[in-house]
Amino acid sequence: MELFYSDNCNNNQCVLAQEESMHCVKVLRHKVGDAINVIDGCGTLYHCVIESCSPKETVARINSVESDWGAHNYKLRMAVAPPKNIERYEWFAEKATEIGIDEIYPIIGDYSQRKVLKTERLKRIVLSAAKQSLKGAVPKIAEPLSVRDFIIASKDFESDCEKIICYCDDVEDTSKYLISNLLKDKKSVVVMIGPEGDFSKEEAKFAIENGFKVASLGTSRLRIETAALTAVGVTYFLNQ
Amino acid sequence: MELFYSDNCNNNQCVLAQEESMHCVKVLRHKVGDAINVIDGCGTLYHCVIESCSPKETVARINSVESDWGAHNYKLRMAVAPPKNIERYEWFAEKATEIGIDEIYPIIGDYSQRKVLKTERLKRIVLSAAKQSLKGAVPKIAEPLSVRDFIIASKDFESDCEKIICYCDDVEDTSKYLISNLLKDKKSVVVMIGPEGDFSKEEAKFAIENGFKVASLGTSRLRIETAALTAVGVTYFLNQ
Repeated sequence: MELFYSDNCNNNQCVLAQEESMHCVKVLRHKVGDAINVIDGCGTLYHCVIESCSPKETVARINSVESDWGAHNYKLRMAVAPPKNIERYEWFAEKATEIGIDEIYPIIGDYSQRKVLKTERLKRIVLSAAKQSLKGAVPKIAEPLSVRDFIIASKDFESDCEKIICYCDDVEDTSKYLISNLLKDKKSVVVMIGPEGDFSKEEAKFAIENGFKVASLGTSRLRIETAALTAVGVTYFLNQ
Repeated sequence: MELFYSDNCNNNQCVLAQEESMHCVKVLRHKVGDAINVIDGCGTLYHCVIESCSPKETVARINSVESDWGAHNYKLRMAVAPPKNIERYEWFAEKATEIGIDEIYPIIGDYSQRKVLKTERLKRIVLSAAKQSLKGAVPKIAEPLSVRDFIIASKDFESDCEKIICYCDDVEDTSKYLISNLLKDKKSVVVMIGPEGDFSKEEAKFAIENGFKVASLGTSRLRIETAALTAVGVTYFLNQ
């Protein structure tokens, strides 16, 4: 199934911007009168017919609408420190989109080797992954922020949001859960995965003070992107 | 932690073949008397001291042994049809090794677009992934075989092996489970994942006749390698 993306849909029509129009008209050779499917990236699928098209702009009339198209029934935010090799992070973003995720927060920790990340490429990757896996909603990619700033920002998440920090060290006076034991039947979940060097003791302490539960990812030694994707996968299965 | 591989370990010594010796002597500049760690790929870690070394062969005396080193407490076999893009299969093999898997069977189905697969590269990938993720056991990579031949071969698996076929179509007179509901506290599991075009009705029927349960991977539309890796991940978590 071929999907186009438009951030310019109203009750009557979807307008494809230049890049999507180019693909629609030049590559796929669509013409006025052709039926196309358009996602708005916010969860809605529009069945449309092309009214006018050019490589610069395509206007399609909406015939019918499917909301929450390809949606999952939980809200998952992953706050993951980008590894040195950025391709591994892009891979995580693509796979997480296929499985089901809502927001990705690149976080920079005290021990992060990578302190900067450009999000443009990531946004293109999750858009194409959402199209490929037939999802009307495209995950949001936040701009990078520090672990502390993310923890503060997480205070605005849903009140029933299960907040989890995956931390390898032991923590005094705090119980540590296997992550899968925290995920069953949750409406809203956020999982923090630290950099190669893990979170600092201060970062972990600050997370716990702000309502995060400390979780383990089991006995295997996982790379950042593998740890993050297994967390996405188990959240998906335990909330089907 | 730096690991070497040897398929030639006895009670007293480990012998590194040419490739590992080259890496040990030329790249890492190890000398007689140096302490090195060697895995035998079958689950055992040997703490050794180099007795003699050259780029062709290195002999190391065993000082102590750790068996079941980095082992997981379940046996998981994944029978997965290779996708057109073989890199995606190699990626699955690498990540599955990190998480925990015992055997990978490339299976060729009636609807497989890819009918052949060279296993040499896969074997190198899982060996280096096992070293990187500190596991003494290296997953076995079977030679490709047809779906039917694999189902017949699976009759020799443990009698308590939970046999699962992930199949998208509905099947008459057979209940379909969410895969995660079949995996908890299992000693032995085998999961079959079909090609882009899924298994044929006849293949699914043959699997069911031979004791496979039909499972769903949930509501998302997953690529072969993503489906396979999520199955590995949820098996891992539900059997910690």
